[in-house]
Amino acid sequence: MATIADVARLAGVSKSTVSRALSRPEMLLPETVATVQDAAEKLGYVANSAARFLAGGRTGVIALVVPTLDNSFFAPIIGGAQARADAEGRQVTVAVHSFAAGESLTTFGRLARQVDGFIIVAPGGSDDIVRAAATKPAVLVDREIEGMSSAVADTASAFTLVVEHFARTGRRRLVYVGGPGNSWQDAQRTAAVRAAAERVGVSLEVVGPFPPTFAAGAEAARQVRELRPDAVIPYATALGLGIQHVYLVAGETPPVVSSERAIVEALGLAGVPAIDVDGRVLGDVAARLLSQRIQDPSGDPNRVRLSVPVTWGA
Amino acid sequence: MATIADVARLAGVSKSTVSRALSRPEMLLPETVATVQDAAEKLGYVANSAARFLAGGRTGVIALVVPTLDNSFFAPIIGGAQARADAEGRQVTVAVHSFAAGESLTTFGRLARQVDGFIIVAPGGSDDIVRAAATKPAVLVDREIEGMSSAVADTASAFTLVVEHFARTGRRRLVYVGGPGNSWQDAQRTAAVRAAAERVGVSLEVVGPFPPTFAAGAEAARQVRELRPDAVIPYATALGLGIQHVYLVAGETPPVVSSERAIVEALGLAGVPAIDVDGRVLGDVAARLLSQRIQDPSGDPNRVRLSVPVTWGA
Repeated sequence: MATIADVARLAGVSKSTVSRALSRPEMLLPETVATVQDAAEKLGYVANSAARFLAGGRTGVIALVVPTLDNSFFAPIIGGAQARADAEGRQVTVAVHSFAAGESLTTFGRLARQVDGFIIVAPGGSDDIVRAAATKPAVLVDREIEGMSSAVADTASAFTLVVEHFARTGRRRLVYVGGPGNSWQDAQRTAAVRAAAERVGVSLEVVGPFPPTFAAGAEAARQVRELRPDAVIPYATALGLGIQHVYLVAGETPPVVSSERAIVEALGLAGVPAIDVDGRVLGDVAARLLSQRIQDPSGDPNRVRLSVPVTWGA
Repeated sequence: MATIADVARLAGVSKSTVSRALSRPEMLLPETVATVQDAAEKLGYVANSAARFLAGGRTGVIALVVPTLDNSFFAPIIGGAQARADAEGRQVTVAVHSFAAGESLTTFGRLARQVDGFIIVAPGGSDDIVRAAATKPAVLVDREIEGMSSAVADTASAFTLVVEHFARTGRRRLVYVGGPGNSWQDAQRTAAVRAAAERVGVSLEVVGPFPPTFAAGAEAARQVRELRPDAVIPYATALGLGIQHVYLVAGETPPVVSSERAIVEALGLAGVPAIDVDGRVLGDVAARLLSQRIQDPSGDPNRVRLSVPVTWGA
C-alpha cells in the first residue's frame, strides 16, 4: 500500500505538504493541491485515511447524534461540526437517536464500534441514559451533565435580557411559550424567565410544552390569547410566528413577540428583541472539544458556554 | 483479526445471524443481539465493517451532498437515506457543496476517495459540473441529468393540480412565487404552473427568485400585493407564510395560498391545497438506487419519479 512518503516523492513536495493538501487544501495553492492529488491517484492512495486510522485503532469518523432531523435548528450545528471535522481530516456521520426511555441503545452500541467519538445533541432523555450511551469520548451540545464535556449556547441569559427589556418598555403581562417537554434548554429558559420576571416585578404565565413549529404555534395561540399578554416570549421563532398568525387572522393586534434577527429585519420591526444563536459556532466548538477528548480521553471534562447576542430590531 | 466465523462460534449462532445482529438488530430478539455483541466485543471485532469494506476496495461509507443545511426540506431526505444505509450496514457522511460556478471541486475529489458513492442534492450548478463531480457511483435527488440515476418528487404534477383546483373554484388571477434561481425543481414547477394556467385559461404572473424562507416571503409580499392575485402558489411553505403575514399586518385579507398539510390542519383551513412531499421516502429511494449502482456501476441509470399527493384542507 502506498505511503504518504511515496506520494510526497512522486509529487516532489514534503510529507507535510501532502498531508495538508489532502486535509486542508484551502491553505495551499490550487496547483500544489492538484499535483498532490494526481500523485495520490496514480499510486492508489485510495481510502487511505480510513486505513491509517484503523492502523492506529481509530476509524477517522465521528458521529453527530441528533434527536430528529426535522428541525432546522440542528442544521447549522451539523454544518459547523462538519466544517471543523473536515479541517481535521475526519468524517462526520449523522445519526438520529432520541434517547427516549425505552428506545433501544442497540444501534447506538453498533455505531460506537465504528467511530472515534460522539457529538450528542440530546435535549430529552435522562442523564443516566445519555451517560450510558457515551461509551466513547463524547461532547454534549446544548445540555450539561456532570462529568461530561459540553458546548452550550447560553440562551438562558439572552431570555433574561428579553424579560428585562420588556419590563423596561412597560410590558407587564408576559407569557413564555415552552418548547418540547424534557428539553434541557427549555428547562434553563423557563427558570431564567421566571427568575427575571420575579426580580423585575412583571407577571409571567408559562404555557406548553409545544414542539418548535409554526403549526404548534397556531395551536398554542388559543391558550395565549386567553391570557391577554402584552408580550410573548416563545421557545422558538416558528412558534411565535404561528401565534401571531392566529391573532392576525382574527383581526386582532398581536402582542409583541420576541424573535430572531432575520425575521425582525425582513419585517422592518423596531424594538422587537431578537435572539441569535449561532449554531455553526456551537457545532465548531463541540467538534474541537471532541478532538481534545479523543486525544486525551482521561483529561478533565470541559464545559463551554457561548454567549448569545440579543438585538432590538431595525 | 477476528472473523465473522469466530464471532458466530463464540456466540453459538450462524454467521448470517451474526451479520444480521450487527446490521439489522431490530429483526432479532434482543437477547440474541446482546449475545452476538458480547462475542464481538470479546474478540475485538472492532471497526471491522470498515476493515472488511477496505479489503473489498470499498469504504462502507456513502456521502450525501446537500447545497446547505439551513433548509429543513433536506432534513427528512437525510433521515430517509440514513435509515436505509443503516439497514444495509453502511454509514452516511453528510457534506455541503453548492456546485456553484467557481466553487472548487477539490473537497469533492477528496471526499470521493473516502466513499463508495454519492447521493447528490444539487438544485443549482450546471449539468456539466454535477456530472464532473460524480467520479463514483451517484444518484441525484430532485433533479434529472441525462445518463445519471435519480429520485425525484414529482411536485410539478402536484403544482399542476393546484392550478386546476384554483381555476375550478373560480380563481382567475394567480401568482407563482418562485424559489431559488437555477433550482431544477423551481424550473419544473414554473413550467408546469405556466402550462396549466394557459390550458385552463387563468392569468398567471411569476415573481422571484426567492430563497425558501419566511423572511423572503415578507420581502416578496410587496411585489405580490401589487399584482392583486386571488390565489398565490409559493415555491415553499415558509415563503407563503411570510407573504400572508405582511397582508395580515396591513389589515388586508390575503388571497388563498397553497401550503402543506401540517399548516392547513393546524389552522383548520378548508379548501386550501396542501402539497405533501415525503422527504424520507425520497432519501430511502435514493439510497436504494445508490446500492444498485455500487453493486453494478455499469448498469443502466435508473430514473424514479415519486408521485406527490395534494389534499384540500380540513
